[in-house]
Amino acid sequence: MENPLLLMIPGPTPVPEPVLFASARQPISHRSQDFRDLMADITVHLKWLHQTQNEVLILASSGTGAMEAGIINFLSPGDRVLVGCNGKFGDRWTLVCEQFGLITERITAPWGKALDPKRFRQHLEADLDKQIKAVIVTHSETSTGVLNDLETISRHIKAHGQALSIIDAVTSLGICPVPVDEWGLDVVVSASQKGYRMPPGLGFVCVSPKAWQAYETARFPRFYFDLGKCRTDAATNTTPFTPPVNLFFALQMSLTLMKAEGLSAMFAHQQRLMQATRAALHALDLPLFVPDHYVASPAVTAIAPDQVAPETLRFKLQQQYGVVIAAGQDHMRGKLVRIGHLGYVCDRSIVTTIAAIEAALKDLDYPFQVGAGVEAAHRIFKGS
Amino acid sequence: MENPLLLMIPGPTPVPEPVLFASARQPISHRSQDFRDLMADITVHLKWLHQTQNEVLILASSGTGAMEAGIINFLSPGDRVLVGCNGKFGDRWTLVCEQFGLITERITAPWGKALDPKRFRQHLEADLDKQIKAVIVTHSETSTGVLNDLETISRHIKAHGQALSIIDAVTSLGICPVPVDEWGLDVVVSASQKGYRMPPGLGFVCVSPKAWQAYETARFPRFYFDLGKCRTDAATNTTPFTPPVNLFFALQMSLTLMKAEGLSAMFAHQQRLMQATRAALHALDLPLFVPDHYVASPAVTAIAPDQVAPETLRFKLQQQYGVVIAAGQDHMRGKLVRIGHLGYVCDRSIVTTIAAIEAALKDLDYPFQVGAGVEAAHRIFKGS
Repeated sequence: MENPLLLMIPGPTPVPEPVLFASARQPISHRSQDFRDLMADITVHLKWLHQTQNEVLILASSGTGAMEAGIINFLSPGDRVLVGCNGKFGDRWTLVCEQFGLITERITAPWGKALDPKRFRQHLEADLDKQIKAVIVTHSETSTGVLNDLETISRHIKAHGQALSIIDAVTSLGICPVPVDEWGLDVVVSASQKGYRMPPGLGFVCVSPKAWQAYETARFPRFYFDLGKCRTDAATNTTPFTPPVNLFFALQMSLTLMKAEGLSAMFAHQQRLMQATRAALHALDLPLFVPDHYVASPAVTAIAPDQVAPETLRFKLQQQYGVVIAAGQDHMRGKLVRIGHLGYVCDRSIVTTIAAIEAALKDLDYPFQVGAGVEAAHRIFKGS
Repeated sequence: MENPLLLMIPGPTPVPEPVLFASARQPISHRSQDFRDLMADITVHLKWLHQTQNEVLILASSGTGAMEAGIINFLSPGDRVLVGCNGKFGDRWTLVCEQFGLITERITAPWGKALDPKRFRQHLEADLDKQIKAVIVTHSETSTGVLNDLETISRHIKAHGQALSIIDAVTSLGICPVPVDEWGLDVVVSASQKGYRMPPGLGFVCVSPKAWQAYETARFPRFYFDLGKCRTDAATNTTPFTPPVNLFFALQMSLTLMKAEGLSAMFAHQQRLMQATRAALHALDLPLFVPDHYVASPAVTAIAPDQVAPETLRFKLQQQYGVVIAAGQDHMRGKLVRIGHLGYVCDRSIVTTIAAIEAALKDLDYPFQVGAGVEAAHRIFKGS
């Protein structure tokens, strides 16, 4: 028998069965009242999830497509942008900006550490003639598992007055608070296979009135990713191009389940999973890549094992115990493993993963106290 | 009880249950051997469907996204392109080209009529200094149901020597022959919710070696739709960004079912459905929008009723009989209705649709001989 796999990677994630079943319905016409009703319902719930009155637009694309849309709709070639980079996704947004001819400055931090909000403030305060048109920040850096201090950084962006905030919330939305209106975020990008607890294939862009003003003068050529067209059609609950209707069914079901759970319960659940994971890994003497004095992402926890090869541990976990965790990315490949704890994941998923890690470590003659990981996780779950 | 709906629109289409069920599996990691095996299998079948040795790349997007990718990867701002326009989709490609600053010339025909291949020949022969960089042709015009003579037009494009052919095969691939290698087609675009018999959400671009040469010097900025990145990753059966893995499951199942059926059986089936539909509508004195002396698309048949309001007929069909057909598009809205006969559609789907049309016409006091439509369809199905 092949091992049934437990997916503990930072997306795609396990999906609740009602969501999968909803996606397996026969398609409907995307130009029908049924579709308009579906989209109207989804739209209300998306605003709830984003804690916003702004429009949330849905694209048939991955998160990267949505991010590109979030950039090319509000900027023009030659515009100056400031990009926070402390991992693969910060690097990716820099690449996108450069590819489109934006003048890109970076505020960096080493992988595994958080961006320093003060450096954003200094940089933005020094821009007296308001040349910086946008600041791009990855909220939860999926490549390392660090959570950047978006609340403080966005306050500095607002103080600048001119620059838009363009936020990668791909592994934070639905996972920890991203109160779009309270923090005054202009463009917030997310993707379906993360906190949405559904399969990949949809990207989301949440757009503030200030960003729509910038849209009026933005000069990148665009057609498929033209958010103005999406906005016009969304006003009558339709889309400019054929939407992935089956993923819309899944989205409606997932949002309905989330709404019943409530934002604070969702966030508390994610926080617990992260704390239990970190406590367990500490107890196993597996070095956490994000130190305790930074804020850890409730979506993903990276380990930088020193006494066992990360890829050996990862293969062992998958091949023998059926637990799938992720490798490090880019230059951290072979140096990190990453445990995703987002999507349809529960306390049991964490104790299972930790128990499998213990078993794999035992196989690999790693010195640790058997049971210490599961016990530490259990202590968090018991709330003591 | 709400009517169960029979979807007879030109996409989304009805989907075989094994395909829907395949899409409802738990997601897998897109960076796993299981995913690479899946993509390798899909790739072989996609080449089979396109009758080609060229690469067929998969995008998370609608058909329009794939079409945009087919344009911006192989051309540069200011390039001259020739666009065939005899319906909404020809118009859309003109819009895309203009949006990206291409110098666009159009060869037009009235909606409902086919493009004249001779005019392509004349235009291309007159281009002595080879300034035309691409010719864009919509094979099956979904807005009208006419099939353009792509074989002849593509011969004229090849005779030009310089211009690439960029082909919208969205409602022809899998529905009638599109032998990419035999006809020497450079860029062929399609989408999952049409001849693929699966839900919407994937776009496909098939790229010839000549188009890859053009890619090397093409200067549109691009990131998400960069087909060079897709090609590099596809070589190791992976994708640059998170693919919609559940739609990949569906695609694999659908291609497997199609392969078992065989291309010629698939095309013969579609031809029969179209002929039966046209014969039935003729017998009901409902004016066909594409006259008999043009080649009709085996994907969609449009009617331009004169003694009954098209939208009244359409609403009646859906509300009372649960058969969903499509409205006319753009300036033909309210003047046409369109019956899609693609996807998971069989002889029964046609007799059902025709019988429902007869019942609706009866309700609307339209003068016709009751039973004539179903009888005419039956005659085609019997092969007499």
